[in-house]
Amino acid sequence: MDSVTIKELAEALQLSAGTVSKALKDSHEISAETKMRVLAMAEKLNYVPNPYASSLRKRKSKTIAVVIPEIADSFFSLAINGIEEVAQQKGYHVLIYLTHENFEKEKNILHEFVSGRADGLLISVSGETTKDTHIEALKKNNVPVVFFDRAFTTSENAKVITNDFESGMLAAKHLVEKGCRKIAFLSISNCLSICNARMEGYEKILAENNMEINAKQILLCSNNEAENLNAIKKLLSLKERPDGIIISVEKLIIPVYTICRELQLQIPHDVKLIAFSNLSSAFILNPSLTTITQPAFEIGKTAATLLFKSLEKQNFDLTKEQVIIPSVLQQRDSTL
Amino acid sequence: MDSVTIKELAEALQLSAGTVSKALKDSHEISAETKMRVLAMAEKLNYVPNPYASSLRKRKSKTIAVVIPEIADSFFSLAINGIEEVAQQKGYHVLIYLTHENFEKEKNILHEFVSGRADGLLISVSGETTKDTHIEALKKNNVPVVFFDRAFTTSENAKVITNDFESGMLAAKHLVEKGCRKIAFLSISNCLSICNARMEGYEKILAENNMEINAKQILLCSNNEAENLNAIKKLLSLKERPDGIIISVEKLIIPVYTICRELQLQIPHDVKLIAFSNLSSAFILNPSLTTITQPAFEIGKTAATLLFKSLEKQNFDLTKEQVIIPSVLQQRDSTL
Repeated sequence: MDSVTIKELAEALQLSAGTVSKALKDSHEISAETKMRVLAMAEKLNYVPNPYASSLRKRKSKTIAVVIPEIADSFFSLAINGIEEVAQQKGYHVLIYLTHENFEKEKNILHEFVSGRADGLLISVSGETTKDTHIEALKKNNVPVVFFDRAFTTSENAKVITNDFESGMLAAKHLVEKGCRKIAFLSISNCLSICNARMEGYEKILAENNMEINAKQILLCSNNEAENLNAIKKLLSLKERPDGIIISVEKLIIPVYTICRELQLQIPHDVKLIAFSNLSSAFILNPSLTTITQPAFEIGKTAATLLFKSLEKQNFDLTKEQVIIPSVLQQRDSTL
Repeated sequence: MDSVTIKELAEALQLSAGTVSKALKDSHEISAETKMRVLAMAEKLNYVPNPYASSLRKRKSKTIAVVIPEIADSFFSLAINGIEEVAQQKGYHVLIYLTHENFEKEKNILHEFVSGRADGLLISVSGETTKDTHIEALKKNNVPVVFFDRAFTTSENAKVITNDFESGMLAAKHLVEKGCRKIAFLSISNCLSICNARMEGYEKILAENNMEINAKQILLCSNNEAENLNAIKKLLSLKERPDGIIISVEKLIIPVYTICRELQLQIPHDVKLIAFSNLSSAFILNPSLTTITQPAFEIGKTAATLLFKSLEKQNFDLTKEQVIIPSVLQQRDSTL
């Protein structure tokens, strides 16, 4: 729900804007009864007071908000470093909100920004986000928004992403070249732009190589660790056990290694692994892990740069900005 | 600098509080000249408008702030999960600020909270923090503060920490038992409570075992990755090369593994490693890493629980609360 102005609030109450304003400021000129009416209507119509009101309006919050699904992911920590580098130069604070892949939480968080708590927003959407009314509401309130990595693709928004489709192809092609014939794909969402693009790249390569796309080989993991371990165990215990796995999100790496140990499967002999990840420990894992490394720092930095351009220039059409920065394959022992 | 009230601002200007208040609200009743004077003095005296003013005061920000040194650390991501579990139950938002181990940044961030942007604060101080005037300023403004993990020890504050001194002893004792005679200690700060306590535990065990405490074996690393790699390389190239290393902060783990590879030192044969870390990949590293695992989730959860107790109960004396939750040694191949 959009927030209303004092004027709209006054109209609904059939009072003057001045009276409503005074009531909201708890003025002694207004009766207790009127104050109660005003507060009740303010709640009903979603009136959000602007924290930096009136003549101090020009003193902006000097804050940009970053909304991400989770903190324990090396992509996001690197991207935030890129964002902070730019923000620091501009004398801005960065505040970070976590959605834990939950759409309701994302909506609630964004609702806060309507009140002017942050001057602009950088967001990587949750795995559940299929609508963008919460983002449109911000844009209507002149809070500029830039998507990074996980964009919402149907509407026109500024975005800084990597080449996920091509990277999905690259990962699958690499496994095919290494001799894999039964390639599984692990994902966490069927609505996330990045997961879908990576999967489409994977499917394209399988089709090009006359390899069957087997639904059993595509795993949609959840936020529940125990469930994920079970699902991976089931996958790796299939009669037609995959001989290669594309792990499309970092948090599934450790579960896959764990189950391989449990089932005494040798990586890369029994199963080859490639993961979308910026994990700095990839090269000291046992065995070291082949990765599609994303330009995380660059994505964060570029997204923040665009946001500040929009904050600084009145006539800059932010929504037209779309930047794609390619990822890189780093081969290590898990696909030898 | 503390923020002033409207009353104090009015006194300094020799105006009535009502006039100042109106001027700040850009009222048509006040002349442009007076508005200018008021704004200039407001800036000079550090007047911070409360974002949720007047009659909406009871509608608190419903937000707690978490201030941490960095995001790419498994301790903090787990602790934040613990904090968010409690905050979610209470219907609160959590917002995260990063100091990047920089005291100036920490001070600037905390200054924001004086204006009521958050109802309470959980903080793990930066590696440079040696004063706590910025924290005292918050407490004076009735913003409750709870330290977690990295506390500021000289003043009376609520804190939830682990048994760092005993854990430092435990780590050193473990290496002594495994036959190490030249044990190095890697730290990142000589003012952080946690690093000092861990080092004191280490020094106690060395003294008990008649082992010399050699300044060359104690490394104070920085925020600069290249410098750290160089310093570790120098340490591991010493004639009296250490045969055991206590890595007291997680971010030094990968640099140590990197240099061991570069110098072709076999872990644990040539040098044994033990690290203070919650890294979930510790068991799949090559070789797997012996850790002092901290109760990160529990520390976050307990700290948040204390903060909410203080927010909910008027007469709760938060500053008396001190909770210590012990860490655990998990032996793996790096100290075999």
